[in-house]
Amino acid sequence: MTTAHVFIATSLDGYIARHDGDIGWLLQRDDPAEEHGYNDFIAGKDLIVMGRGCYQKVLTFDRWHYALPVLVLSRQLAGTAVPPALQGKVRFADLTPRQAMAELAQQGVRRIYLDGGQLVQSFLREGLVTDMVITTVPVLIGGGRPLFGALPNDIDLKLVSSRAFPSGLVQSTYLVAP
Amino acid sequence: MTTAHVFIATSLDGYIARHDGDIGWLLQRDDPAEEHGYNDFIAGKDLIVMGRGCYQKVLTFDRWHYALPVLVLSRQLAGTAVPPALQGKVRFADLTPRQAMAELAQQGVRRIYLDGGQLVQSFLREGLVTDMVITTVPVLIGGGRPLFGALPNDIDLKLVSSRAFPSGLVQSTYLVAP
Repeated sequence: MTTAHVFIATSLDGYIARHDGDIGWLLQRDDPAEEHGYNDFIAGKDLIVMGRGCYQKVLTFDRWHYALPVLVLSRQLAGTAVPPALQGKVRFADLTPRQAMAELAQQGVRRIYLDGGQLVQSFLREGLVTDMVITTVPVLIGGGRPLFGALPNDIDLKLVSSRAFPSGLVQSTYLVAP
Repeated sequence: MTTAHVFIATSLDGYIARHDGDIGWLLQRDDPAEEHGYNDFIAGKDLIVMGRGCYQKVLTFDRWHYALPVLVLSRQLAGTAVPPALQGKVRFADLTPRQAMAELAQQGVRRIYLDGGQLVQSFLREGLVTDMVITTVPVLIGGGRPLFGALPNDIDLKLVSSRAFPSGLVQSTYLVAP
């Protein structure tokens, strides 16, 4: 069985990026000297699953940051070739969240890091998220790409832990009630 | 000078009530044995300012909970009579946030408790909020009345403190950067 885990930052008003994808408001408040637990989080994962929006955002970064294999769920990209520099690191697939989880389970993938707002929302709607580490950035940006979206039912959460950093980030870990 | 202070609870996805005003999801997760600091907060305030939506919600409660005078900012209610049971406790006025703050300052009101999503948003847009105590409830409700809204500019916040409760509530206090 494969389980999906979220580690994501959001403004206090719930946005993971501006409408145009900009995350400068986040980066400028990230103190590199603070240890926010990303390395510990990622060390326990086998694969990263993201959507097209998130993939195209990380493509703009100066270098490819991921040591883990990345699966990009996108109807639009599924028929296209992975850029040469990313072959063997990235795979495109047109799969629903449930199909992706079934395929990954067959491949022996145990724990995935789920990244990007749209994908987190669709996996949450399908009841496919196990836990979430939400880091809240002390700023209101007033609009953008929301972390959460519409749901067919309430999703009950269990707070596992919460900690505040000198930079003003508040990081809370929630188990999603099964 | 009058300062405005927010003390409010929100679902993790940023809603203070469902679309119909329902807050059952909040009340069922509120452990009355936990001390969330409301009494300390309110003890330092002179007056409560709320909008019509919030006023009409508290009217449905079993009793009037407020010892402090309440100012309801509402164009619609401003021409109407305050219910007999609330005379001397509640006043209706058709004032903008800035007008209300100026009038209250003239009356010697020093610190107000600002309640309700719409009013918090309009005071934030005008730069009239000093600090906010935000209590995050461990649930996603998928939609409803949002705590925050559109802004003309980013609002920078300074985290003062954050604490987690056994019930799973996370309460963070932010100073709004002037």
